[in-house]
Amino acid sequence: MIWETHTATQNGLHTEHVSGIARICHKWKVPIIPFSGGSSVEGHISAPFGGVSIVFAYMDRNVKLNKDDMDVVVQPSVCWTDLNQELAKQGTGLWFPIDPAPSAKIGGMIGTNCSGTNAVRYGTMRDWVINMTIVLADGSVVKTRRRPRKCSAGYNLNGLIVGSEGTLGVVTEATLKLAAVPDHFSVAVVPFDDLRGAVSAAADIIWRGMRIVNEGGATRPRVWKETPTLFLKFSGTKGPVDDSIKTVREIMKPYSPPAFEFARDEHEQKMLWSARKESLYSLLAMREDGEEMWNTDVAVPLSRLADIIEDSKAHAASLGLKACVKGHIGDSNFHENITYNKADPKEAEKAKMAVKTMVKRALEMEGTCTGEHGVGIGKKDALLREVGEDTIQVMKLLKGVLDPYWIMNPGKVFNR
Amino acid sequence: MIWETHTATQNGLHTEHVSGIARICHKWKVPIIPFSGGSSVEGHISAPFGGVSIVFAYMDRNVKLNKDDMDVVVQPSVCWTDLNQELAKQGTGLWFPIDPAPSAKIGGMIGTNCSGTNAVRYGTMRDWVINMTIVLADGSVVKTRRRPRKCSAGYNLNGLIVGSEGTLGVVTEATLKLAAVPDHFSVAVVPFDDLRGAVSAAADIIWRGMRIVNEGGATRPRVWKETPTLFLKFSGTKGPVDDSIKTVREIMKPYSPPAFEFARDEHEQKMLWSARKESLYSLLAMREDGEEMWNTDVAVPLSRLADIIEDSKAHAASLGLKACVKGHIGDSNFHENITYNKADPKEAEKAKMAVKTMVKRALEMEGTCTGEHGVGIGKKDALLREVGEDTIQVMKLLKGVLDPYWIMNPGKVFNR
Repeated sequence: MIWETHTATQNGLHTEHVSGIARICHKWKVPIIPFSGGSSVEGHISAPFGGVSIVFAYMDRNVKLNKDDMDVVVQPSVCWTDLNQELAKQGTGLWFPIDPAPSAKIGGMIGTNCSGTNAVRYGTMRDWVINMTIVLADGSVVKTRRRPRKCSAGYNLNGLIVGSEGTLGVVTEATLKLAAVPDHFSVAVVPFDDLRGAVSAAADIIWRGMRIVNEGGATRPRVWKETPTLFLKFSGTKGPVDDSIKTVREIMKPYSPPAFEFARDEHEQKMLWSARKESLYSLLAMREDGEEMWNTDVAVPLSRLADIIEDSKAHAASLGLKACVKGHIGDSNFHENITYNKADPKEAEKAKMAVKTMVKRALEMEGTCTGEHGVGIGKKDALLREVGEDTIQVMKLLKGVLDPYWIMNPGKVFNR
Repeated sequence: MIWETHTATQNGLHTEHVSGIARICHKWKVPIIPFSGGSSVEGHISAPFGGVSIVFAYMDRNVKLNKDDMDVVVQPSVCWTDLNQELAKQGTGLWFPIDPAPSAKIGGMIGTNCSGTNAVRYGTMRDWVINMTIVLADGSVVKTRRRPRKCSAGYNLNGLIVGSEGTLGVVTEATLKLAAVPDHFSVAVVPFDDLRGAVSAAADIIWRGMRIVNEGGATRPRVWKETPTLFLKFSGTKGPVDDSIKTVREIMKPYSPPAFEFARDEHEQKMLWSARKESLYSLLAMREDGEEMWNTDVAVPLSRLADIIEDSKAHAASLGLKACVKGHIGDSNFHENITYNKADPKEAEKAKMAVKTMVKRALEMEGTCTGEHGVGIGKKDALLREVGEDTIQVMKLLKGVLDPYWIMNPGKVFNR
């Protein structure tokens, strides 16, 4: 990954190349499936109707850093972790705070409106996109906006495109907001006796208006005590961080967590946080031969989070499934990871049942079938139940007018 | 304004009534112009092609408070200041933090994607809408979403509708996020010798990643020293607020502001802040007979704010106009208020020239013709120059498919 000027970029692959492909595909009505990081878990990069997979591997350049404006122009295959490494290496004092899977790339992150453990403090992908260059189905190229951080001029095409899963157009360049790197971080790990205590304590923190980076959940990583555990990350200048820690300790008292472990230095911070950040990989490593992992997410109103996590854990257990629940409690968004043997029809059926029931419960609680992973192929039925036929119809009208032949990532979000 | 259950609401005016009007208007191709607070400054509530003005005066109910979920369901004529008074009166510990003109109402606030002095800390209207009930041009009714605070399910209709200025549909109900009221506030007023110092000091604060409520600018209210002045609002728990004040003092040292006045109690906070919040009214009061006020806004990338404010002040002065510049410096968004005699053709021409030049300069700096007021009638040409014909064409396609006869607030945002 290198920093280039606009001129240099024009020697590499750029928007016009993608536009050329789209023009041909449009003429021959051939589906286009965009591919950047490939870390989607809902089948976004599959090609149910065949077609051309546009792999952005060679569009991985940081086009321009506008340090004084705190923004950066990037191509779709820039990986957010590489971007942050580069910003740190150059000593900019800036970072891009949205943190999905470490291998996720900007194009796909825009597609799913991703977020991650920092969302309660920094929001989701859609809050960090200033403008995008989009290739539409017929190959025409539009730029959504100029470069102001705040804008009320015309329709918010950013808002529509971010999260549209490549079904309305393909992003070939994006300007992203950057944030100042906080002076100070701290990490705490708090095991609880029961799940409801852990979730309620986290809800209380949010209620106090604290915008610490807050990630909680009931993880079962290998080396930790097997109990519901809150992972908390604090950031800011030293004073506020110390103050937040004090307040959080007070808030947690009534829930009497048996322990409250704080990182004493940066190394310990990394050790403590890694338990959460690596929990998916730990789970993947624990699979036995032939086992697969079903990783899915839902989100509900704040007051229902403990209910749905308890329900989902109990249901998975009653089915005899190995399931791990971990959540972004501040956002009432959580993940269930089910380890199962796909080749065993009974077990596959049980896994399907567990996910279906969890989604159904989330919708009954006025929640959503996905807080950050997107709909893809896997949740089309759920989306229809979630918003209803009339709202889907509006989405299809918007799709149809921008992509009359439905060549942009067809078969995702909803059926034709 | 009263809190009602869903059942009670159905005895008042509600979505179905608006839908009925739309069905008739659609049949006879009659324009619909929605009206809630009427505080728009870009002609959104005018009727250039005649039509029906839907006045939401009797749709002013808080439908449901979901306290534990930190959200509230409201009708479009709820005024944000009334909502906050009610939330305080009930001792909820919650508030709605978006603060445009005190008379603004939720419907119009959604229409323009408004913001205000809290934006640098809390974002803009679009960040606070969980779902909306929309009446489309043909009278059909859709709900954009259920009630999760975070969502990646299907197209982000919220993002498209918020800021579309009533041209895509009419909002009849909205669920809004609420935030915890900060424990502690503080206000500081810092006069500077020169404008660039004021803007640079504010930029440095943003650079340090501080999310204090920050509102700066060069105001000239009557009782204050006539010098560029930063108004800063701090919020949070006491520790972080004290810490922020300390950090801000340090950051400002190199710019040697001649004074640094802090509020010592709540009364002083109100006094100090009122100078900023009431500056528009002070200016209006200062008008001489026959004089009007042209209140407009632009936004630019962070590093260009001092340039465009200096340019705009100098240009207005060279034209002999009375102009006041005040900005939301954290968002690189600022307002120019020009007092002029509309009946005097020469002065009217000069005012027009001042605004046109300011917008032109903002676009040259990769900025936008409006950061929070919207396009309305006044900035259609500017929007076209800002995003270009191809992007406008995409907006028109979206408009056309949802409103084939262009009956929804026609003549706003762009021409047919």
